[in-house]
Amino acid sequence: MGTASHLINQTTDRLMRYIIDNNLQAGSKLPTELELSLLLQVGRSTIREAVKALVGRNILEVRQGSGTFLVREQIGIIEDPFGLAFIKNKKKLIFDLLEVRMAIEPRIAAIAATVASDDDITVIKKLAEETENTINNNGDYTQKDTELHAKIAQTSGNLVIPILLPIIQRAQRTIIVLSRPLQEVNKQETIKFHRLIVEAIEKHDPVGAADAMVLHIAYARNFIRCYFNEIGEIP
Amino acid sequence: MGTASHLINQTTDRLMRYIIDNNLQAGSKLPTELELSLLLQVGRSTIREAVKALVGRNILEVRQGSGTFLVREQIGIIEDPFGLAFIKNKKKLIFDLLEVRMAIEPRIAAIAATVASDDDITVIKKLAEETENTINNNGDYTQKDTELHAKIAQTSGNLVIPILLPIIQRAQRTIIVLSRPLQEVNKQETIKFHRLIVEAIEKHDPVGAADAMVLHIAYARNFIRCYFNEIGEIP
Repeated sequence: MGTASHLINQTTDRLMRYIIDNNLQAGSKLPTELELSLLLQVGRSTIREAVKALVGRNILEVRQGSGTFLVREQIGIIEDPFGLAFIKNKKKLIFDLLEVRMAIEPRIAAIAATVASDDDITVIKKLAEETENTINNNGDYTQKDTELHAKIAQTSGNLVIPILLPIIQRAQRTIIVLSRPLQEVNKQETIKFHRLIVEAIEKHDPVGAADAMVLHIAYARNFIRCYFNEIGEIP
Repeated sequence: MGTASHLINQTTDRLMRYIIDNNLQAGSKLPTELELSLLLQVGRSTIREAVKALVGRNILEVRQGSGTFLVREQIGIIEDPFGLAFIKNKKKLIFDLLEVRMAIEPRIAAIAATVASDDDITVIKKLAEETENTINNNGDYTQKDTELHAKIAQTSGNLVIPILLPIIQRAQRTIIVLSRPLQEVNKQETIKFHRLIVEAIEKHDPVGAADAMVLHIAYARNFIRCYFNEIGEIP
């Protein structure tokens, strides 16, 4: 790691700064490599490496023949930014992921219940219904479930948690897919607790929403705990 | 985004899987590009792009002339994985970052107080002392402060929060450095509350540790709130 890699890191930061300062929107095309090289006063190969670094973070996308673009949605979100794949003890990891959710989601559900607009409630109800339908059709409901929890987080107005929560839920999913029985984790209870959460938000009842969220997460965690006690390990 | 980029993403995932399955440790050297190309049955240019993607996520490091290595510490941690730099409303962002900390850190401090070993307590006390000394010498104490909070999180045994918390604290710092007065945020109070937290952990008093952490975060947030009420904006 010499000066070259230091220059690349610095250029990556300056390129980020350029994107932010120029208020580039998702889908925008970036200046060419040559233009960026003149703009930031570094060589084209340095620009190329900086662009690659931002492609690696899902911030930029290079479309062959058309140029470099700011990615469309979920800017900067990479699949496993915490490197959780490197954690060996998946059994402990799933409890610790649920501990993060237990700390965050009841508070967030309470705020969402307080401030939810009619439009928010419509979307929340639709996502809960779609999750239910997918469960009842024996489909993989984790995507819809993640969207529902993310929408509740987004309704709360917090800027960080709607980004954080899907990362946690995706990590949880990658563990759960390892095990068939865990996939069956409290499907009917999920429907029941989702309904409770949605009803409380609709009634603008913060304590009810927080309680329902605690029940939802505690029930899931307890199901997993009982299962591990029986079988000892993730099969 | 055509098949080429799909193949690169897939190869990136397989390369991660290779690292995990072969139990490569931080600092380990990876096989050469040619070897990886034979191993994963894809072209060398695809391997090169996959390596670049993992370099962009701070998982790999290419050392000119010596090869590709797994990075030494804080595997996979990138500076701003949530893309928080893209959030325009820095004033709201700092409150929302502190809300995440308020949800997580008191619970974590309580667990740390319950389970801390004598060695953990020694390290926690040392970090608190170093933070104090840096504050008293008018230095930038945010690094030591982040280490202290991360050590408390690590003591709790949770696998996710010691990774998450420094990301939140670094984001908070990048906002605070924009403003001179915010840098003065409750320095003496920080010393006072850190001492309270450390004392409670040392006494294995979970409720005391949680209370002290609530006080610490609430005080900081209230300081920032009063400051914004006065000046209206981040200067």
